[in-house]
Amino acid sequence: MTSKQVLIAIIGAGGVGKCFLSQLEVLARKRPSPQLSLCYICTSKKALYSSDYSAIATDSALSTLGSSSQTPLELPKLADYLASAQSKAILIDNTSSQDVADAYPQFLSRGVSIVTPNKKAFSGSYKLWQDIFAAAAESGAKVYHESSVGAGLPVISTLKDLVDTGDEVTKIEGVFSGTMSFLFNSFAPTSGSGGKWSVEVKKAKELGYTEPDPRDDLNGLDVARKLTILARLAGLPVESPTSFPVQSLIPKELESVSSGDEFLQRLPEFDSQMEETKAAAEKEGKVVRFVGSIDVATKQVKVGLEKFDRSHPIAALKGSDNIISFYTKRYGSNPLIIQGAGAGGEVTAMGVTSDLIKVLS
Amino acid sequence: MTSKQVLIAIIGAGGVGKCFLSQLEVLARKRPSPQLSLCYICTSKKALYSSDYSAIATDSALSTLGSSSQTPLELPKLADYLASAQSKAILIDNTSSQDVADAYPQFLSRGVSIVTPNKKAFSGSYKLWQDIFAAAAESGAKVYHESSVGAGLPVISTLKDLVDTGDEVTKIEGVFSGTMSFLFNSFAPTSGSGGKWSVEVKKAKELGYTEPDPRDDLNGLDVARKLTILARLAGLPVESPTSFPVQSLIPKELESVSSGDEFLQRLPEFDSQMEETKAAAEKEGKVVRFVGSIDVATKQVKVGLEKFDRSHPIAALKGSDNIISFYTKRYGSNPLIIQGAGAGGEVTAMGVTSDLIKVLS
Repeated sequence: MTSKQVLIAIIGAGGVGKCFLSQLEVLARKRPSPQLSLCYICTSKKALYSSDYSAIATDSALSTLGSSSQTPLELPKLADYLASAQSKAILIDNTSSQDVADAYPQFLSRGVSIVTPNKKAFSGSYKLWQDIFAAAAESGAKVYHESSVGAGLPVISTLKDLVDTGDEVTKIEGVFSGTMSFLFNSFAPTSGSGGKWSVEVKKAKELGYTEPDPRDDLNGLDVARKLTILARLAGLPVESPTSFPVQSLIPKELESVSSGDEFLQRLPEFDSQMEETKAAAEKEGKVVRFVGSIDVATKQVKVGLEKFDRSHPIAALKGSDNIISFYTKRYGSNPLIIQGAGAGGEVTAMGVTSDLIKVLS
Repeated sequence: MTSKQVLIAIIGAGGVGKCFLSQLEVLARKRPSPQLSLCYICTSKKALYSSDYSAIATDSALSTLGSSSQTPLELPKLADYLASAQSKAILIDNTSSQDVADAYPQFLSRGVSIVTPNKKAFSGSYKLWQDIFAAAAESGAKVYHESSVGAGLPVISTLKDLVDTGDEVTKIEGVFSGTMSFLFNSFAPTSGSGGKWSVEVKKAKELGYTEPDPRDDLNGLDVARKLTILARLAGLPVESPTSFPVQSLIPKELESVSSGDEFLQRLPEFDSQMEETKAAAEKEGKVVRFVGSIDVATKQVKVGLEKFDRSHPIAALKGSDNIISFYTKRYGSNPLIIQGAGAGGEVTAMGVTSDLIKVLS
């Protein structure tokens, strides 16, 4: 980077966006060079920017944005705006929007680097994945997305290091959803009998661990998206998150009920199914967990329920933690394991901020 | 980096050095730009280089080195040699030599970047630590040492990310020695009664898990060095690896016996001491482990025996795996955990190679 100023544009000011802003403030204070200058920030309705790229104060950005009368630039215009600046620009996409994701190649091909926790760009069609990395390779712009899997946990950087240094990743396995982790750690704990399935789902929702409609967690798609990203990084050209087996925990009869509330109300009718699954595992001295796995040699990716010995690290997980095990030729029979909170504003923003540091250096 | 060629100089061609050479070969094939050119390689006795920095073929470097009649350049001369090149140069120190470590500031101040698994530079005197990072900051040269703690496990990069993004690390705890891990996982397993201490030490030596003289593992200094590095990265100005409490597992009476063999021969006399320690833990339903910990708030660093519940991740470790837990403000009560093989040529070289990739990009 030749210039001593780097422009930062942020889309999204929700939970992650807010945490990122405060981390950006700390970072800018700690690293005087290059000077980080926030030139654009928007939500879906409002925006804040000026034609001369004047710096927006990060500490008051949110309140100023709240009272702004500017509306967001359309994505092609935002790409023009950032590509026309004298300084290098980095787009921080703190949304989970497919539209923004679809526009990444436009930004990258014009030299704008991208840092994001948004899974959509990397787990959508394989063509979008190829377009993104082709655009980045051609222009030299960078694209980092550590927080798209396991939030701030060093999952993607570790997988990249394994691959780039020539190790052979044979299998990746883990619990990739904080919601699923919480549900199964309470429903089928390693000691004690655990609660009823429908009760645990209700509790998780009340504690804010699920999406507004819990079916958006229970359908397994979020985990399938993360698996798609890791499988592609490991070298498998996975077509989409629906191109491999994904077990949904939504009973067929409740797939089409109109609301999350109705779903929760009727879920107890199906408790016996989950009880049977739990009992079958218990008979073998095991517990049931919702996991994703990638077998690189046989090219099999799958998401669903599996049984584990009580002493297995996947069984022994606590709270809503994620765990990701990398089995490789170098690491042999004992995998390289990364474990910890895989969701939440602060830790997700941490992944974004550390990616930003990588782009800067 | 302006030039499209980067010169690589390697000191050390032992276990790690050999693995690194083969990883370098793969890397150079995968990443055509910048072109990596091996210009210098040496052991303690022999060297291979030419005044015009001609590329040494990596695949035959070891055999050519074996029959070379050149002797290693003295360190100040090697610094001259690398600093005088037209292209950027990176020194890979694959030794565990204090002399080479002491010379890092000379290399760095002249713009030569350093990548190394050598713990000595970062766990020696605090002045050397300061000199190294001051020289790097001034010249812009990089210094990376991921493999100095936990080999290829992403320990140092993760700690740096936590600190750089503004998280507050409150405590770091773990098993930092593959030898100690193996010894205690067999001596005090979570199920079953385990073997006698002296028998396990003998077995570990026979399997190649210990230094030639096992006392070099049992004195705890290796763990103390790793703790010194992590504590400094977490912001504590630890003076040296002997400036905090380190419990040695060498019985006082055997500290001065002349050889490792004599030590092993007399060790059974002291088995009852270790049995007592194990029994005391068992009475509480716990197992004993050799751990290091850093309490950042109280600035306490210590290395020694601790008791853990059988279900604790530190107790449940397998084989010779390391485990490192980062407790931080963001991660709350459940730490960020990294686990896996923390020693061995291939995984140590992997840390070196991934650091090299970071310097290159």
